[in-house]
Amino acid sequence: MKLYDCTQAPNARRVRIFIAEKGLDIPKVEVDIAGGENLQADFLNKNPRGLLPLLELDDGSYLDESVAICRYLEELHPEPALMGIDAKSKARIDSTQRHIEFDAISPLADVFRNSVLQFKERAIAGTTGVAAIEPLVDRGINSYQRFLDRLNENLKVNKYVAGPEFSIADITALCAIDFARWVKLEIPEYHTHTRQWYELVSSRPSVCA
Amino acid sequence: MKLYDCTQAPNARRVRIFIAEKGLDIPKVEVDIAGGENLQADFLNKNPRGLLPLLELDDGSYLDESVAICRYLEELHPEPALMGIDAKSKARIDSTQRHIEFDAISPLADVFRNSVLQFKERAIAGTTGVAAIEPLVDRGINSYQRFLDRLNENLKVNKYVAGPEFSIADITALCAIDFARWVKLEIPEYHTHTRQWYELVSSRPSVCA
Repeated sequence: MKLYDCTQAPNARRVRIFIAEKGLDIPKVEVDIAGGENLQADFLNKNPRGLLPLLELDDGSYLDESVAICRYLEELHPEPALMGIDAKSKARIDSTQRHIEFDAISPLADVFRNSVLQFKERAIAGTTGVAAIEPLVDRGINSYQRFLDRLNENLKVNKYVAGPEFSIADITALCAIDFARWVKLEIPEYHTHTRQWYELVSSRPSVCA
Repeated sequence: MKLYDCTQAPNARRVRIFIAEKGLDIPKVEVDIAGGENLQADFLNKNPRGLLPLLELDDGSYLDESVAICRYLEELHPEPALMGIDAKSKARIDSTQRHIEFDAISPLADVFRNSVLQFKERAIAGTTGVAAIEPLVDRGINSYQRFLDRLNENLKVNKYVAGPEFSIADITALCAIDFARWVKLEIPEYHTHTRQWYELVSSRPSVCA
């Protein structure tokens, strides 16, 4: 196996942390998204959607999408379980993680892609010729703030974002929150539950992967 | 169990078809999204994100997000398998389905929500006070067309969208394509592989669920 990676990209980081939590050692190949390497023929032949991360399997085929890559690794290496152990915990973790993707990562990607000069004509990841839409920046910030409010409520009653155990959903939330800092959005001071959780999760060695 | 449903909503339809394919009988409660019933306190107490579908479990707790609901049902009722049977097929189906969500359903939701008068101030599902952004309509149409091009290429070599077997990814693709018709986007005549697949999948009794 081989992971096509981009050190800067939040979705690639999700997979790197997952791999580290599993204690796996998978060789990585860096692809320069900012420089547009993901939009060149060599990479598009591997993944026509132009997105990172991408896993090359031992049979030479490719698997994309962060969560699908994690699911594959979870199936091959069930311990430690990061995607649930029974019907309810699997579904709960999946649901929570999707909240984070739809309510935080996508809006934050909108904020970033539609405000940074470098991506002026690459406002959708993996694609060229898509112009920025400036009002998406405010809309994205507001979505992310609604997400943060709900997250703090959630962490009032749960130790981790999808329940009592650390899971892939915590990895996704951590990567979203750190991504938000790129566009100067921090956890508010009064979100004490989120701040406490953030400190707990950030102390895991895997976060440096 | 009880499914909070909305007959018109594409994501609710995904779950209804999934339930029909499994041969399950789960009572349904209709919630009127167009009339804003999902934004009233009674529903928000069940799902603070205001989104449908929503599954009420036998212990009285709630599970949201279409795919998480399907995953829960797949775990409880593994046959017929709709989400894969081994590491590779599970990951492949998950990945393909995410392509459809990110490249078709989300852009189509943008086209719909940002162009229909009724949702002028509800441009993000489940939320009030979010104004439409008109340029998202063209952006969404273009994203969907890129998706359709890739889908037809995929179906040149695969019988179903995630490989040789019918799966949840076919349900998601079918619901996306039928949703697109609301905004007058059809499968192009020359996408013969997609048209053939569409006919095959549409002939399943479950699609009327």
